Amino acid sequence: MIASISNRATRHQITDVLESPFPLVSRQVSSRRTIVDVSGVKIGGLNIVVMAGPCSVESREQLLPTAHAVKAAGATILRGGAYKPRTSPYDFQGLGVEALRLLKEAREITGLPVVTEVMDTEDVDTIVDYADMLQVGARNMQNFALLRRLARVNRPILLKRGPSATIKEWLLAAEYLLAGGNENVVLCERGIKTFETETRNTLDLASVARIQELSHLPVIVDPSHATGRRSLVPAASRAAIAVGADGLIIEVHPDPDHALSDGPQSLDIQGFADLMQTIQRPLRRV
Amino acid sequence: MIASISNRATRHQITDVLESPFPLVSRQVSSRRTIVDVSGVKIGGLNIVVMAGPCSVESREQLLPTAHAVKAAGATILRGGAYKPRTSPYDFQGLGVEALRLLKEAREITGLPVVTEVMDTEDVDTIVDYADMLQVGARNMQNFALLRRLARVNRPILLKRGPSATIKEWLLAAEYLLAGGNENVVLCERGIKTFETETRNTLDLASVARIQELSHLPVIVDPSHATGRRSLVPAASRAAIAVGADGLIIEVHPDPDHALSDGPQSLDIQGFADLMQTIQRPLRRV
Amino acid sequence: MIASISNRATRHQITDVLESPFPLVSRQVSSRRTIVDVSGVKIGGLNIVVMAGPCSVESREQLLPTAHAVKAAGATILRGGAYKPRTSPYDFQGLGVEALRLLKEAREITGLPVVTEVMDTEDVDTIVDYADMLQVGARNMQNFALLRRLARVNRPILLKRGPSATIKEWLLAAEYLLAGGNENVVLCERGIKTFETETRNTLDLASVARIQELSHLPVIVDPSHATGRRSLVPAASRAAIAVGADGLIIEVHPDPDHALSDGPQSLDIQGFADLMQTIQRPLRRV
Amino acid sequence: MIASISNRATRHQITDVLESPFPLVSRQVSSRRTIVDVSGVKIGGLNIVVMAGPCSVESREQLLPTAHAVKAAGATILRGGAYKPRTSPYDFQGLGVEALRLLKEAREITGLPVVTEVMDTEDVDTIVDYADMLQVGARNMQNFALLRRLARVNRPILLKRGPSATIKEWLLAAEYLLAGGNENVVLCERGIKTFETETRNTLDLASVARIQELSHLPVIVDPSHATGRRSLVPAASRAAIAVGADGLIIEVHPDPDHALSDGPQSLDIQGFADLMQTIQRPLRRV
Repeated sequence: MIASISNRATRHQITDVLESPFPLVSRQVSSRRTIVDVSGVKIGGLNIVVMAGPCSVESREQLLPTAHAVKAAGATILRGGAYKPRTSPYDFQGLGVEALRLLKEAREITGLPVVTEVMDTEDVDTIVDYADMLQVGARNMQNFALLRRLARVNRPILLKRGPSATIKEWLLAAEYLLAGGNENVVLCERGIKTFETETRNTLDLASVARIQELSHLPVIVDPSHATGRRSLVPAASRAAIAVGADGLIIEVHPDPDHALSDGPQSLDIQGFADLMQTIQRPLRRV
Repeated sequence: MIASISNRATRHQITDVLESPFPLVSRQVSSRRTIVDVSGVKIGGLNIVVMAGPCSVESREQLLPTAHAVKAAGATILRGGAYKPRTSPYDFQGLGVEALRLLKEAREITGLPVVTEVMDTEDVDTIVDYADMLQVGARNMQNFALLRRLARVNRPILLKRGPSATIKEWLLAAEYLLAGGNENVVLCERGIKTFETETRNTLDLASVARIQELSHLPVIVDPSHATGRRSLVPAASRAAIAVGADGLIIEVHPDPDHALSDGPQSLDIQGFADLMQTIQRPLRRV
Repeated sequence: MIASISNRATRHQITDVLESPFPLVSRQVSSRRTIVDVSGVKIGGLNIVVMAGPCSVESREQLLPTAHAVKAAGATILRGGAYKPRTSPYDFQGLGVEALRLLKEAREITGLPVVTEVMDTEDVDTIVDYADMLQVGARNMQNFALLRRLARVNRPILLKRGPSATIKEWLLAAEYLLAGGNENVVLCERGIKTFETETRNTLDLASVARIQELSHLPVIVDPSHATGRRSLVPAASRAAIAVGADGLIIEVHPDPDHALSDGPQSLDIQGFADLMQTIQRPLRRV
Repeated sequence: MIASISNRATRHQITDVLESPFPLVSRQVSSRRTIVDVSGVKIGGLNIVVMAGPCSVESREQLLPTAHAVKAAGATILRGGAYKPRTSPYDFQGLGVEALRLLKEAREITGLPVVTEVMDTEDVDTIVDYADMLQVGARNMQNFALLRRLARVNRPILLKRGPSATIKEWLLAAEYLLAGGNENVVLCERGIKTFETETRNTLDLASVARIQELSHLPVIVDPSHATGRRSLVPAASRAAIAVGADGLIIEVHPDPDHALSDGPQSLDIQGFADLMQTIQRPLRRV
């Protein structure tokens, strides 16, 4: 992992000088853009990184073929949920450690680094044993206890934007991570909550361009959660690349109609391969 | 604490019959309204309960006079933050256990039960030793790990609505608590996030009336966070009572202009006393 | 009609002094609250004014009994739509001049002044012949051509808040009317558009209290459109009075289940009479 | 102008068969995409159309050089406001007919067709004499009197999305135009109103892709109003093309810092030329 800010002054010295509410994530502190290294995959440089995999890890039979397929199509990081934040207590809550073991197995077989969500401070130590990158989900973006804990972890963090978080609140959440010592943070725009109901959320791509003016941190886009509709994922992915995103995270399932979570927004394996064909190769930032 | 649902059937039996997405919090399961007992103070019955106190516990000199004053004015539960969820890592984060000790002291002197926020599963056991009621803050409303932990705690829970939570999502968060075994849940409307900037949030009082159609749980209103302006708290409080809320939670500080958090929305001691005079006595639900 | 601002200076003189973006509607210009006189019914004084009637005028058989009933129950202004703004071109668009004639007949029989919506500059002269007060609908709040035309009309205006209008935008829309010469403006909060779907709109009662800090104009509340549910109208009405509103405008239909528009949010005649019983009499501002 | 729907059945016949709430704009009625012809410039085909020009027409000295410059850079339609919808009555309201004359002069000199906004039914006949395409502004999207009038006009219509309009409401507004006889409608996404304040509005690019699933009408994007920041316009423009938009409408001013309206979001002439260089040529839909 590459430290973006060397010889960092204390917070008070910095704020005296910079007057930014989020001095460490601000571009004021660093003219260089941060490159986050996820077990060898670099996010924030010239290449566009695609993370792909199922919403939830459901079984070996589901995960391993998906992992092979997304790698073959060009993805370089494997995503998969072990602990699932679900609106209803009666929905599938994830396989937990069993899912972590399967992710590790998929990682060993395919060589793809793994990103998975952490929902609770008590799970951090366990997940660190299995995953290359830890995701903070949208609904936990302002779970400050979790942010403080992850600031002390030796893993890069994927920080999703809260469904009603302003850009400023989002960058301040990232500031918790940097201020606590973890400089390897990747932001992820995944749509915000509005009155529109045709799409699951409202994909805010201008925020990606604005973030890149305000911060040196890489920012990727999740077109699956943003749109909630499989049919819109390819167009949204191409738009994300065009706006300047550093990468994508896309839900892929071998049989979306029978997925235990987020089926309607998951691409099937062929759909993901087709999408990867339509985005220019090699994938480079605009 | 009063159990609202006796001889409760299993979840699967209930959903077979009721078809509600939140069967345990639904009125379908119980024609009686739940009354939650907070160390003797009953929420959900005929009387309107007023919780009051500082946003953050700052010192003994701040807390004890405030506790005495809010009791004298008619409040029956003392609020005070020990662990503070702050948007910026550079803002005051609360005194932690020291604040809990001060709250316990105030409780012993005044006899007022204490409600305070819990932000992390790891703090639950500690806070249970000091507080009569545990608050889940708005930004943690969908911190499902925390909800699952609090479902197993022998304390009533004050569940604030998330800034962008629909009524359905809010009731499903409550369902996590009931499904896990804690039936003593009070809901708290505290404003939702909208495009309007004149007020800190948009107070959604129709949600209170709608909740009472959908659920047997008590619901109170936080006019301080909802409006963000001291001058609007009295009118918002009166409207909350008129719409049928079971209570209020109000921020009071002896010197709001020097408060470490939420000063602009805190009433001073005289302002709180004046407010209590204008709401009809004895405070009874409409 | 009572002029609230006498010897009014020119705009440039005022803004030099006052620095308000909406100098004429601002309280800075007048320490007195404006009282708007609608053919003898005064809005903005101590009494709370209730306007009631059907969403759309459908027939003499529908309108006249409704007018008699709402008067008997205590309403002092009759509402009824002649020109209806409908989301779909295939929905009932109103009876137009025929409805205006029926409203005038109801006015003559009952003595109730009439308020009805104007949607187009071309209809203004016609509607002025029939109605005592002209309503600007929510979707036309920023129809500036219409506002400029209504500024030159000898009728008081009921200016509904746009579904996504900030308080500032709303007061600036009122400023168009005052700047153009019409000082008899009543504001109407009718809910704003948010992510919440349990209610048709989100009733923003804190805006009423905030408006009264910022402006000398009267402000009333429309609980029918704000909630979209008949069952929530009584509680929302009581809350509106408690927050300090100067009046209410409520949809009443003799047979809501067969109404040509807005049936689900219309009270029937008995429901309206019951509501009027529950709000304290004589109706006075808090 | 090309009629997209030939031998169209009556409304009642269509809705009987199709069950779409907006049968005429729905793709169900036509498998072909509509191509709208604006005095020879075709919108909705393979080429991406760029409309550019000042927010407000201010003077001949401002307009003519801008018109020449945007044509030289590749724009094929000239935009310019004559009647301006302004939030405040004290802001510049446009030059009216004088602006229309200047637009016509610019049209004659450059050959670029002209699009300009119409705010009122009473202005329609005048504007038709000068402009090739009539724009319905965002705040008038549900000005149904205006829509009904424009349905009978022999000019294509640019229908901007309302700041809080759902996709369904937007398509129903278009349905007013088609149902009234004007089939030459181009939709324009210009951002919706949300809690985010870093950008003027929230650009909803997924709506463009969704519209193309639901409707045969062309849809373009206004990155200037959507972002409100000049620096974000190029990235937003590229994203709009990538998501599949049929065109762009961009504000360009020779001296944005002194523009009478919308300066902060206007590109200068060099900035517009630079943007046009970065979008692939010839401009074709993805």
